[in-house]
Amino acid sequence: MTDRTLVKQLAAQTDGPVTVAGWVETVRDQKKVQFVILRDESGAVQLVNPATRELAEDAPAEGAGSAAALALTEAISGLSHGSFVRVTGDLKHDERVKLGGLEVKIGSLEIVTEAPAEPPIAADSSLDKRLDWRYLDLRQPKHNLIFRIQTTLEHAWRTWWVDNGFIEIHTPKLMSSPSESRAELFQLDYFDLGTAYLAQSPQHFKQMAQAAGFGKIFEISPVFRADPSFTSRHATEFISVDAEMSWIDSHDDVMVMQEHLLAAGFEAVVEKHGDEIREQFGIELTVPALPFPRIPLAEAREIVQARGYEIPRTDGDLDPEGERQIAAHVKETYGHDFVFVTDYPTGIRPFYHMVDPETGLTKSYDLIYNGTEITTGAQREHRISVLEEQAKAKGLELEGLAHYLDFFRYGIPPHGGFGMGLARVLMLMLGEASIREVTFLFRGPTRLAP
Amino acid sequence: MTDRTLVKQLAAQTDGPVTVAGWVETVRDQKKVQFVILRDESGAVQLVNPATRELAEDAPAEGAGSAAALALTEAISGLSHGSFVRVTGDLKHDERVKLGGLEVKIGSLEIVTEAPAEPPIAADSSLDKRLDWRYLDLRQPKHNLIFRIQTTLEHAWRTWWVDNGFIEIHTPKLMSSPSESRAELFQLDYFDLGTAYLAQSPQHFKQMAQAAGFGKIFEISPVFRADPSFTSRHATEFISVDAEMSWIDSHDDVMVMQEHLLAAGFEAVVEKHGDEIREQFGIELTVPALPFPRIPLAEAREIVQARGYEIPRTDGDLDPEGERQIAAHVKETYGHDFVFVTDYPTGIRPFYHMVDPETGLTKSYDLIYNGTEITTGAQREHRISVLEEQAKAKGLELEGLAHYLDFFRYGIPPHGGFGMGLARVLMLMLGEASIREVTFLFRGPTRLAP
Repeated sequence: MTDRTLVKQLAAQTDGPVTVAGWVETVRDQKKVQFVILRDESGAVQLVNPATRELAEDAPAEGAGSAAALALTEAISGLSHGSFVRVTGDLKHDERVKLGGLEVKIGSLEIVTEAPAEPPIAADSSLDKRLDWRYLDLRQPKHNLIFRIQTTLEHAWRTWWVDNGFIEIHTPKLMSSPSESRAELFQLDYFDLGTAYLAQSPQHFKQMAQAAGFGKIFEISPVFRADPSFTSRHATEFISVDAEMSWIDSHDDVMVMQEHLLAAGFEAVVEKHGDEIREQFGIELTVPALPFPRIPLAEAREIVQARGYEIPRTDGDLDPEGERQIAAHVKETYGHDFVFVTDYPTGIRPFYHMVDPETGLTKSYDLIYNGTEITTGAQREHRISVLEEQAKAKGLELEGLAHYLDFFRYGIPPHGGFGMGLARVLMLMLGEASIREVTFLFRGPTRLAP
Repeated sequence: MTDRTLVKQLAAQTDGPVTVAGWVETVRDQKKVQFVILRDESGAVQLVNPATRELAEDAPAEGAGSAAALALTEAISGLSHGSFVRVTGDLKHDERVKLGGLEVKIGSLEIVTEAPAEPPIAADSSLDKRLDWRYLDLRQPKHNLIFRIQTTLEHAWRTWWVDNGFIEIHTPKLMSSPSESRAELFQLDYFDLGTAYLAQSPQHFKQMAQAAGFGKIFEISPVFRADPSFTSRHATEFISVDAEMSWIDSHDDVMVMQEHLLAAGFEAVVEKHGDEIREQFGIELTVPALPFPRIPLAEAREIVQARGYEIPRTDGDLDPEGERQIAAHVKETYGHDFVFVTDYPTGIRPFYHMVDPETGLTKSYDLIYNGTEITTGAQREHRISVLEEQAKAKGLELEGLAHYLDFFRYGIPPHGGFGMGLARVLMLMLGEASIREVTFLFRGPTRLAP
């Protein structure tokens, strides 16, 4: 490995020789002195060089006025933004330097790969143009931070699951039948077997793990929806965060699991990145209090109506504005950013959600975070005869569901779980306007590259 | 949640009332006493019931001879294997009980879901038949253990990466151009954009993260190969374990990272599952010593030849038997299960591997574990002009690689990484004959379901 010091480690170093490596963020080429801001994955540092603009008379072998100093000055003058360089020099702590109170006096500079003079985008380019050049767009410290937060969040979640006895599974994304509905399906030719479908969710297989006696499972993996919509919260490929567990009594057991999981994730993010989030996003992130508020859908609709918003949907669900309204109510009333909306009617839920015989409503929930839905969860119907009836009542043909229904014929415990969109959580956590900003490489109906 | 005790927790419980839940593994229905082996995700326990075969004269309200006791006895006699049940009873520690030195005297038994009388497979059914009924096959404790080991292994790897400053990324699986070669490609219609391809590896995008200044990244995700082969180590969809890092000097830096990563994973698995692995697989798993042996390919071929094996391949590579031979040599000579075979000629490596100008060989390696290749790693060529030349020398058209090549035009540091097949590691670790055994749901040319 290049024997380099990460920029964030410089503060703890004593003055003296040091090597740093990264890309050129800016060059200030003044007559008498040159400044380079060098950035690496951990931060930015100021490099400084006293300029030699011409050879001194009787030019010395080294130092100011020497041929070497002139060459270095000219190299720095010619540096293009984005070029990767390796610099050896002298670290000096100096309170007067605004950027971190230290600078590196350049001894030698090696240009590792040179970028063209003009970068194709700027920080304020349009989102679509920035996505065309995503690898340059991601060099912005704010964007880099998003993926360090993602790393911390996912690791905290997995750690929580592992500590609580969940098994990690990897379900196949190639399927012989649709996993959710016949709509929004990507399909492809599959050898002599005909058509394969890309998984819209791991739903079938995480339930299969219950029949297999796995008890509690989780998976974080890509899912695919041939969804032609262009909203800020939809993509054709996205990362789904899924968990499923046996021996629950109701969907409330799933909610308890999910709120503890989320709190553990937020705790890790606040601890590791709280200061950076404040600095880069202007957000004071806090750990959500437990338990999260729970409001049955019927009551939520009344609250929204009482706030003066008439939900235009006629199917009994909330629409996006309704979600924002109930979230605003919860924020005002309980000071909470999350709310579980529970007990949806069967008409707006998939056939596999369990129905509560007392209310006729499904034992299911949506989780709304800062006004947008991030999760659907439910207790699943595990009794094969009831499940088949519910599928038929939805007009589904049992034949197409044969593989799925088989999971229930040879014994399966009561179970339930949830699916959560990773990018939605990050978008709402950081106050970003679109999941495109928090996805490494967004995929939508008109975007398949880079 | 059902207030149940996991079977593995019973040993630490004092005698008295207890609830357990799981599935019926066996029933021994003797005249005077009935035994049920109940299994859950954590283990198996013996349940016992003194049989009441007929009502006693003046049948008591409860206890032996009562109507309730007769009903319970008949329910147990009728239990089918695989049914899920919930049992409340009395825990009693008793050294004479072979299974764990304890048993539960059944108080009440609830059949949660009843399985048909005849299970469709047995432990010794053919692999293909077992995969048809994978959800029942996975109930075998040995198979359950595989996925608990997988969980521990992956979590240890991710923890090592996170502790060492790697960022987790999720690269898209839908691509506008092939990621590795034009062969073995799954393709699908993608809106108005024409054809999309399923990622054969995250190669392009993990390199893109280097241009983005991410420094060090990892990803564990599915990849897809329309590979018509039926060997024990190929699948059309599998989990690829990937890492990539900047500022390396050579492929040796990648090897150092990978061997430390593997050692951390094995250490966690040995600690958490060493006893179970010995019991279920008859294997004494140990943590591999560092560093792993390294042998240049040319030398490896000489060693294999000296052992009396003539490699039939004419392209200079090892074949599977050659891999087994060099592994046997390393095991005999160094007592090591792993070996890095290094410095492959360009003819058998992709165009993006960096070439060492001194030797004309690529700065790349394969990692062989217990005789089978599990990884290819390399330093990548990051100089765009050299990269384009290497692509052309392979007969590739630069146009099809445009998006990939663009990553190198705006500055990128030296970098390298590896890809590793998760199922191969598990198969070789546990001495299994096929990756089908260690994959949750295998996908091959003739298998797309369940």
